[in-house]
Amino acid sequence: MAEKQDEKKVTPRSQDFAAWYNDIVLRAELADYSPVRGTMVFRPDGFAIWEALRDELDRRIKKTGARNAYFPIFIPESFLRKEAEHVEGFAPEVAVVTHAGGKPLDEPLVVRPTSETIINHMLAQWIHSHRDLPMMVNQWCNVVRWEMRTRLFLRTSEFLWQEGHTAHATREEAERETLTILELYRSFVEEFLAIPLVVGRKSAAERFPGAVETYAIEGLMGDARALQCGTSHFLGQNFARPFEIRFLDERNELQYVWQTSWGVSTRLLGGIVMTHGDDQGLRLPPAVASTQAVIVPISRKPEEGEKVLAAARAALEALENSGIRVRLDAREGLTPGFKFNDWEMRGVPVRIEIGPRDVAAGEAVLARRDRQGAEAKSKAALGEIGPRVKSLLDEIQRSLYQQALAAMRANTREFDDYGAFKKQMEGEGGGGFADVYWCGNPACETRIREETKASCRAIPMNQTGAAGKCIVCGRPAAERAFFAKAY
Amino acid sequence: MAEKQDEKKVTPRSQDFAAWYNDIVLRAELADYSPVRGTMVFRPDGFAIWEALRDELDRRIKKTGARNAYFPIFIPESFLRKEAEHVEGFAPEVAVVTHAGGKPLDEPLVVRPTSETIINHMLAQWIHSHRDLPMMVNQWCNVVRWEMRTRLFLRTSEFLWQEGHTAHATREEAERETLTILELYRSFVEEFLAIPLVVGRKSAAERFPGAVETYAIEGLMGDARALQCGTSHFLGQNFARPFEIRFLDERNELQYVWQTSWGVSTRLLGGIVMTHGDDQGLRLPPAVASTQAVIVPISRKPEEGEKVLAAARAALEALENSGIRVRLDAREGLTPGFKFNDWEMRGVPVRIEIGPRDVAAGEAVLARRDRQGAEAKSKAALGEIGPRVKSLLDEIQRSLYQQALAAMRANTREFDDYGAFKKQMEGEGGGGFADVYWCGNPACETRIREETKASCRAIPMNQTGAAGKCIVCGRPAAERAFFAKAY
Repeated sequence: MAEKQDEKKVTPRSQDFAAWYNDIVLRAELADYSPVRGTMVFRPDGFAIWEALRDELDRRIKKTGARNAYFPIFIPESFLRKEAEHVEGFAPEVAVVTHAGGKPLDEPLVVRPTSETIINHMLAQWIHSHRDLPMMVNQWCNVVRWEMRTRLFLRTSEFLWQEGHTAHATREEAERETLTILELYRSFVEEFLAIPLVVGRKSAAERFPGAVETYAIEGLMGDARALQCGTSHFLGQNFARPFEIRFLDERNELQYVWQTSWGVSTRLLGGIVMTHGDDQGLRLPPAVASTQAVIVPISRKPEEGEKVLAAARAALEALENSGIRVRLDAREGLTPGFKFNDWEMRGVPVRIEIGPRDVAAGEAVLARRDRQGAEAKSKAALGEIGPRVKSLLDEIQRSLYQQALAAMRANTREFDDYGAFKKQMEGEGGGGFADVYWCGNPACETRIREETKASCRAIPMNQTGAAGKCIVCGRPAAERAFFAKAY
Repeated sequence: MAEKQDEKKVTPRSQDFAAWYNDIVLRAELADYSPVRGTMVFRPDGFAIWEALRDELDRRIKKTGARNAYFPIFIPESFLRKEAEHVEGFAPEVAVVTHAGGKPLDEPLVVRPTSETIINHMLAQWIHSHRDLPMMVNQWCNVVRWEMRTRLFLRTSEFLWQEGHTAHATREEAERETLTILELYRSFVEEFLAIPLVVGRKSAAERFPGAVETYAIEGLMGDARALQCGTSHFLGQNFARPFEIRFLDERNELQYVWQTSWGVSTRLLGGIVMTHGDDQGLRLPPAVASTQAVIVPISRKPEEGEKVLAAARAALEALENSGIRVRLDAREGLTPGFKFNDWEMRGVPVRIEIGPRDVAAGEAVLARRDRQGAEAKSKAALGEIGPRVKSLLDEIQRSLYQQALAAMRANTREFDDYGAFKKQMEGEGGGGFADVYWCGNPACETRIREETKASCRAIPMNQTGAAGKCIVCGRPAAERAFFAKAY
C-alpha cells in the first residue's frame, strides 16, 4: 500500500482542487469508490476519523438530554406523502424496495432519506401527557439519497449521519432547542474539527422540506466554495399535525407538540480534507486524529539501530503515558524519507524523529504537520517528551483553526455593487463568501443563483439592525446574507 | 409512561414464555413494533444496552488488530451469485431495490443480508502482497433478511450487528483467527452479558452459506430453548476464488488468500432478557446496565423530605465518584412502591432506599435485583456507600451468571436412548440441551429435526475421543453433539 505512494504525484491543490481532493482521499486511504454507482467505501483510516468525531459529538448531544434510539430503515411510501413539502423534496431522490422475501410488496418501501416520518409515527404512540415532554431522540444511521455521480464524502447515494428529533410542549422551547443544537454544532465543528464557520438561518428556498425555519453552519473550503456542515430545523407543527402527535397539557387539554430535527453527516470528513489538506496530503486536527504522533527511528549503521530503537520505545511509552495516541514506525526496508512522506500524506499532526545523535544528546526532533520546512521543526528533551508533544498538539489544533480562519476571512468580502459581486463569483479562482444586503425577495435570490451559481448560505442572526439596499434590486433590505458557490 | 405500568399484569414467565418476553420488552421500554411488517424500533432504554455491549465488544475486537470500516448497504444482485451456496442461502430472504432516483435500475440492488461479497470485491483491490496481510476489517451496520413476523430482537427483517472479515496468507492462520474470535465472543458473552454458553462447531446443515466450517456460541434461554449468540466462520478460499483475492507471496508467487467472517447481532438483547428476566421484569447484568443503581428517597412528612433528599444527593455524588452509573429518582407524586416496581421492571441491578430513619442512622438500604424478598436487602453505611455498591455490583454480575449456569446445567442432559431424548423434547416444558453421540450422518440429523424439532446446535471441540453409538442409528459415532430446539 505505502509502497505505491510514489507512483504518481498528487495533483497540486492550486492547479485542480477537485483532482487534488480525490488524490488525497484515495492516497491517504480514507475512502474508495464502490462498484455500486453513487456509493463509496469508508476505509479504516477514514472511518477512524468518523469514529472520533462521532464519539465526541455523541457525548455532547447526550449531555443535552437526548438519548439514542434506532428506527427502521424502511419507510412506507404513504408516510412520506403525509407532509406535502417533505414528499416533494425527497421523492425524486429515494431508493425504493419493491420486492422482498421473493415476492412483490403490497406497498413499496422507501429506504430512509431522513427519518422524520417514521420517527414521528412512533412519537405519536409514546407521547400522551406533558410529563412525557420534552422527548428527545437521536439516531446514528445510514441514509440514502440517490446520486448518479459519487463525490467521495461530499455527495454519495448512501451516507452516515446522526439525526436528532425532539418534541416539546411549547413553540418557544422547540425554537430554543433548534438554536441550542445549532450552537452545539458550531462549537463542536470549530473546536474539534478546527473548521471556522458562518452561522445563520437559511432562506426559504434553502430550507429543509417540511421545516418552518432551517439554521445551518457553513464552512469555506480551500477552493473558496462553501460546505454546509450541519443543519438544525424548527419544524413547528408541520409533522405533529399529520402524524397526530398530541399531549394533554397541564389544564388537561389536547395540544399538538412543537418539534425540531437536526443532523450532521460524514460529509464533515470531506470538510476536514478540504479545509486543512495541502499538497503533501492530509492535515488532521489532533482532536480527531487516531494517530496524533508517530515516532520514526533513524539509523544508518546496524550497530546504532538497537540504541535508537530502545530510545524510540522509551519515547513511545512516555507519550502513551501522557495520553497521546502515538505509533512507532519501526517498519524495515523503508527509508526515513519514505516514512516521512507516508505520514505526512496521512495527516499525522506530529512526527518525532530519533537518530543516533539525538539519542546521544538525549533529545528528539519534533516536526509539526501544520508548518513547512525549518519552521516546522523543534527539539525536545526525551525526558520531557510527553508534556512537550501534548502542548504542541494543542498548539496545532489552534493553529489549524487560525490558518483556516485567516483563509475564510481573506475570502469573505462585503459588496454593495452587484457587478463587483458577480465578477468575484466568476471564473476558476472566483468564489468566497459575499456578505451583502438582500431584500429577502426570492426573485433576487434566484437571479443571483442563475447569474453567479452562488446560493444563499446563511442569514446571520443578531444583525446590527442597520438597513441597506438589496444588492440585486436596490430596494430596502433589513438584513445582510452570505452568498457563495457551494458543494 | 411509568404511570401505565400497573394497567395490566405481566404474563407469568412459567405460564407463557413468549407472552412474558413480549410483555417485558414492551413494558421495560426496550423496543416497540414498527409500522413496517417484520421490523422493530429500538427505544432508548434498549438501545443503551446495545451501546454498552457494542462499545465493549468493539474495544475487544480492535485489540485483536481488526479495524472498523464501512461498506455500501447495496450489493449488485450479480455479486451475490458469485458463490453458489451463498446465493442459495440468502436469495430467498433479501429485500431488493428496483427503482431509485425516479427511474428503474439497470441491475437490481440487494439490501445487504451480510457483506461477504461486497467486502471481498474491495479486498481484491486492496490486497496485492503478503505484506498487506493479514487484512482485518470489522463493520457495525444494519442488515436485512426478510421476515413476515416480528419477534422483537430475535427475528426481525432489519437488525444491527457487527461483521468481521479477515484475509490471511495461510490456511492455518485463518483457522486460528476463526477460533480466536470464537473465544473472544465466548468470553465477552459470558463475562459481560452473564450468559453461559455451549461452544462448538456447526453441522454441515447448520453452516453459514459459503463457509467451510462454522463455529457458534449457544446459550440456553429461560424456556430451555437454545439461542445462537454469535458465529465465526472459516471460509477457506470459497470467496477468494470467485472474487479473485490474490497476493504475491514471499517467493513472488500468486496465491489466493484464506478467509474468515464472524458476527454477533442485536439478538443478544433478546438473549439478555430471556436469560435473566423474571416476573417482575428485566434483570440487567451490571456490566451492561446504563443505570447500575437507583436511589429512591422515601419520606412521608414534608419536614423529613429536605433531609432525606440531602442525604440522597450526597449518596449520588459518592456513587458517581466511585464510577457507578447511578440515578436519583426524585420524581414527585409517585409512591415508593410504584418507583420500586418501575425500576425492577427496567432491570436496574441495585436499588438504594433512603428514609428518615436511615438518615438518622447514617445508613441506606441496598436491594439487589438478582434476589427476592428479605434475601435481597442489606444495609450500608452512607459513608462507605460507594465501595459497598461497587462490590455488590460485582457480586450481582457473578450471581446472575451462576444462576443462569445452574439453569443451563439443570436443562442439559446426556441421552443414550433415542426414545428418552424424544420424550424430553416433547411438549411445552420440554427442551434443554441434549448431549448425545451422533454419527455425523445428515440423515440422522434430519430425522431428529423432523421428529423433535431439535437441531444440532454445536459439536464441542476437544472431545475426549471416546467413541460411542449414534443416538439415532446406533452406528459408531466419534463425537458428541448438543441438540436443542432453538430460536
